[in-house]
Amino acid sequence: MFKIPKHQVAGHQAIDGNLGPLVDDSGRFYKPLQDDERGTTELAFYQSFSSKLPHHIRGFFPVFYGTQLVEASDGSGLRPHLVLQDITSNHLNPSILDVKIGSRTWYPEASEDYIQKALEEDRLTTTVTLGFRISGLQIYESKESGYWKPARKEVRSFSADDVRLVLRKFVSSNLEPEPDCCFASTTYGGRSGILEQLLELKAWFEDQTVYHFHSCSLLLLIDKESVLNGRTVPFVEVKLIDFAHTVEAEGVIDHNFLGGLCSFIKFVSEVLTDSKVSTIEASFN
Amino acid sequence: MFKIPKHQVAGHQAIDGNLGPLVDDSGRFYKPLQDDERGTTELAFYQSFSSKLPHHIRGFFPVFYGTQLVEASDGSGLRPHLVLQDITSNHLNPSILDVKIGSRTWYPEASEDYIQKALEEDRLTTTVTLGFRISGLQIYESKESGYWKPARKEVRSFSADDVRLVLRKFVSSNLEPEPDCCFASTTYGGRSGILEQLLELKAWFEDQTVYHFHSCSLLLLIDKESVLNGRTVPFVEVKLIDFAHTVEAEGVIDHNFLGGLCSFIKFVSEVLTDSKVSTIEASFN
Repeated sequence: MFKIPKHQVAGHQAIDGNLGPLVDDSGRFYKPLQDDERGTTELAFYQSFSSKLPHHIRGFFPVFYGTQLVEASDGSGLRPHLVLQDITSNHLNPSILDVKIGSRTWYPEASEDYIQKALEEDRLTTTVTLGFRISGLQIYESKESGYWKPARKEVRSFSADDVRLVLRKFVSSNLEPEPDCCFASTTYGGRSGILEQLLELKAWFEDQTVYHFHSCSLLLLIDKESVLNGRTVPFVEVKLIDFAHTVEAEGVIDHNFLGGLCSFIKFVSEVLTDSKVSTIEASFN
Repeated sequence: MFKIPKHQVAGHQAIDGNLGPLVDDSGRFYKPLQDDERGTTELAFYQSFSSKLPHHIRGFFPVFYGTQLVEASDGSGLRPHLVLQDITSNHLNPSILDVKIGSRTWYPEASEDYIQKALEEDRLTTTVTLGFRISGLQIYESKESGYWKPARKEVRSFSADDVRLVLRKFVSSNLEPEPDCCFASTTYGGRSGILEQLLELKAWFEDQTVYHFHSCSLLLLIDKESVLNGRTVPFVEVKLIDFAHTVEAEGVIDHNFLGGLCSFIKFVSEVLTDSKVSTIEASFN
């Protein structure tokens, strides 16, 4: 009944006898509850978020179905798991981007050891310079070429220009030699497109003093093939995930998340603008 | 001709034979050019900013009149100084707030030594938690009580609640026992008020990829007495100062400054909202 998720792009994976999340056939995602404070924090978040957030923001979070004792993927026996909505279910070939938002993944309440490790990672990746880093991705190209899914090490060493290229490939049908960005206007753009959703999230972050989301990811999903199944525009999804380091805001906005989100929005909007310019140029040739 | 500025609230001061800025009677401010990279960086900024910024943003920066050899305040002889607009001139009793914006005053290009020192200071003050810290202030109360100008050590140890109190006192006529916030609606509020100006700055920061302003301050000035001189609302001024650590943005927005600015805007808007509520409540009593 429980399976290893097909479309996981970041985080611990339930392969080779390791502890990681599982999925079932009914669209649920089982995330092992960590033994330490991280588990407590994430569980507390999921148990309380829906009562603390405005209605129009709740959709940015996975549905939470409670906890369940599940046989752990590492063979260690029964372990409590968070039961969440499997965002990738119903999608045969989803393209997925996991973007850790914020120019800082550490926070004052964390242990000194955690702070030093997180700071080192933030300085090694684009976290400090761009205000976010790509943690993982898979981009579906075609039946023939399948997915582009760079190794973790490669993703970790992404530069600003690599990030720009990834954001172009993410909305392309042909990735090489030059991403065609043919889905940019219908996935990044449009009234319910990714950019509009990010702007809605941004407006909330300018005001909300409920949570500070450290080391939290924005998960973007595009199902390019959904147009083949009768949709006029590709299916897109924008979710926040990973709340093991989410703390109370104590009356202050999450300026760290907000700044990084604004930076990411700028990157996305540049791809959208450039693709519009290309389309206009093409129509004149 | 050159004098020690009366209304300096932060930074090196030209007292007791130290090197610090000077002013003259014509409304100019002479800032000693630092010998090292900081001097080069700040001079380069002032020499180029006006051609790189949109017209409506230039007013947020002090006017730059070039450099001039001036007898240094520490008696070390002639030294090049930046000649800038003296923002406090023409104001007898200005209330001033110096707010260092950003949750991080260090930056990847800085030396490791600078990074460690800046990070330590950021963690000790409200920089990390609030995304900004008050670096200095003076608040004019009245002819009788003069200024409230807490010592540097006190300012450095401000908590979030201290910051809230300062922002209330800043727009009050009576500071004790409870700030009356009687100038809130005409200084923070209003069409050309501080909040509107900060929002204009924010809109620019959401888009600009010209500069990253590390360790830069927002200088807020209120001349409460200007209403006595025929103005209908108190004179307010919003300026950015201190560009010794301003670097090129390389195509990325200044998410660090933007996040901190948004946090500061939230603090200011809360004072404004609370003061409106108080006014309504008072009118019903």
